[in-house]
Amino acid sequence: MLASLNLGDGNNLGTADGRIALDCSVRETRQGHYVISTTDFFFPLVDSPYLQGRIGAANVLSDLYAEGVEHCDFVLMLLAACRDMSLEERNICTQEMVRGFRDACIEADTTITGGQTVLNPWPIIGGVATSVVTKDGFISSDGAQPGDVLVLTKPLGTQVAVNVHEWRNRDDNKFWNKIVETNLITVPEAEDMMYAAVCSMARLNKTGGLLMLKHKANAATDVTGFGILGHAQNLMDNQLAQVGAELHTLPLIANTVKVNDEILNFRLKIGYSAETSGGLLISMPEENAKAYIQDLEEAEGYPAWIIGRITDDPNRKATIIDDVKILEV
Amino acid sequence: MLASLNLGDGNNLGTADGRIALDCSVRETRQGHYVISTTDFFFPLVDSPYLQGRIGAANVLSDLYAEGVEHCDFVLMLLAACRDMSLEERNICTQEMVRGFRDACIEADTTITGGQTVLNPWPIIGGVATSVVTKDGFISSDGAQPGDVLVLTKPLGTQVAVNVHEWRNRDDNKFWNKIVETNLITVPEAEDMMYAAVCSMARLNKTGGLLMLKHKANAATDVTGFGILGHAQNLMDNQLAQVGAELHTLPLIANTVKVNDEILNFRLKIGYSAETSGGLLISMPEENAKAYIQDLEEAEGYPAWIIGRITDDPNRKATIIDDVKILEV
Repeated sequence: MLASLNLGDGNNLGTADGRIALDCSVRETRQGHYVISTTDFFFPLVDSPYLQGRIGAANVLSDLYAEGVEHCDFVLMLLAACRDMSLEERNICTQEMVRGFRDACIEADTTITGGQTVLNPWPIIGGVATSVVTKDGFISSDGAQPGDVLVLTKPLGTQVAVNVHEWRNRDDNKFWNKIVETNLITVPEAEDMMYAAVCSMARLNKTGGLLMLKHKANAATDVTGFGILGHAQNLMDNQLAQVGAELHTLPLIANTVKVNDEILNFRLKIGYSAETSGGLLISMPEENAKAYIQDLEEAEGYPAWIIGRITDDPNRKATIIDDVKILEV
Repeated sequence: MLASLNLGDGNNLGTADGRIALDCSVRETRQGHYVISTTDFFFPLVDSPYLQGRIGAANVLSDLYAEGVEHCDFVLMLLAACRDMSLEERNICTQEMVRGFRDACIEADTTITGGQTVLNPWPIIGGVATSVVTKDGFISSDGAQPGDVLVLTKPLGTQVAVNVHEWRNRDDNKFWNKIVETNLITVPEAEDMMYAAVCSMARLNKTGGLLMLKHKANAATDVTGFGILGHAQNLMDNQLAQVGAELHTLPLIANTVKVNDEILNFRLKIGYSAETSGGLLISMPEENAKAYIQDLEEAEGYPAWIIGRITDDPNRKATIIDDVKILEV
């Protein structure tokens, strides 16, 4: 499972001043401001090096947006060229990854000011995104209140889609063979699934992040390697109030649930399928959430969903309810 | 050649405001301060994962010290655990790399506040070092003057030493066989060479950086993948004045020159042998340089050397003079 190679985001190590930073490192500077910084890098998941570059940038920038940071000041690019490619193939792939990464940074209105490049058996793309802000320039992600709802801005299931695509490209793959034999999904459906995943992963969470400030989000994180439930739990662990999360709806990329149920259990329906460059998971009052979703759809043309609610819970548990609603999107 | 896997430091891409940052990304913040940030990561060069961790931290922090930054505000750690090790070996190696990295960060009086960990065919260690400073909190590295001398704070030859060590550990290695057959160097001499290289690579450039401010360095960089002459040239390209560099002395780890001359040409004597976590190369007036070297030796117990001088040169060339003095240290 390609997407599960990411061993997790180490940014939640806590800071020296005791504050836990959920998605980013947050440090008060000696000048009284805050440096918000985050790093992420991984290995290609998609066929197009250009789109992989975009995904790498969207993924690292997402951590800043999840903190409600309006503007990324600069990006350092982390890159490995693939040792095992021919020189020509390597040059093209590396250049295309860089082009995709740069284009996403341009879209994010930020600048690449440095980085590091190595040769590695596997290609790598990623970066470091940094912003210096004043005290009110970010959301401290610890203010979720009982009665808040949880909004998710991208569908789940990227890991399933990427794996199905990988199976399909291999000779005589037993999982793909089973999909074909059982007529579980058609080739066009598999293509649509991958297309939806790639578009989702390559999309910036910038607008979603900006609108959080306007609509007074109480807390947020972004959904990546730990799956929706893992990140919901991390978010609960970070709250000042004793609150839990109850997820009642899972918006899934169309047909991923069939693959999860019939071919290989990615733990998608129990909330632990890893996501790459996933959506923002936001705690906010219900009326704000509705306006937020409407604004986001108007600005970007993509839906977001209310997928759960914040409860009073001294145990701070995040759970998925038994009769969870599966929403294929 | 292990050390040459580093394809170079991309931090000198230039910044949006037109200023070329030699070793780091330098960005003015919206609040009127400067964020100095740098990233570096690479693959193990030494047998001890603990020392490799220290080297990884020393190497990335060095870029900040080369900018005359007094204090690193925080570090993000970049880590890959080795996929091809047994689980036990992988856990021990990874933990030891992290321990070495952390210890060096503690010595540098900084904090690790985040990072990213992946599984990769090769282990990786590195980081991102960031400091927010005021305008006079760093050296802009563009003020070298004709008549300045060039000081180097660590000896050269780490790539040669690391390779000799690698040859010696392999079965029936042709280079090591030739060393033995020709009695070029003894086993204890090879061990001393590697020991000197490891100590040098693991040593922080912190004191060397702090003393640059006291002794009014005009410009500085640190010596890594491009070799001493490559970095001297980069330094000249960055100067406001039309100056060149003439290197008259090369301080080399003992016996590396023999290996370079008799076994395999690492381009050590022409200044292009890659270094890892090398010394600071500093342009400063001669009288300051003498006091700087004395101060550094008193503080750390390690020598530094005047290795060249700055000339008036509209072509901005860095060269090594014909009868260069080889100083085995």
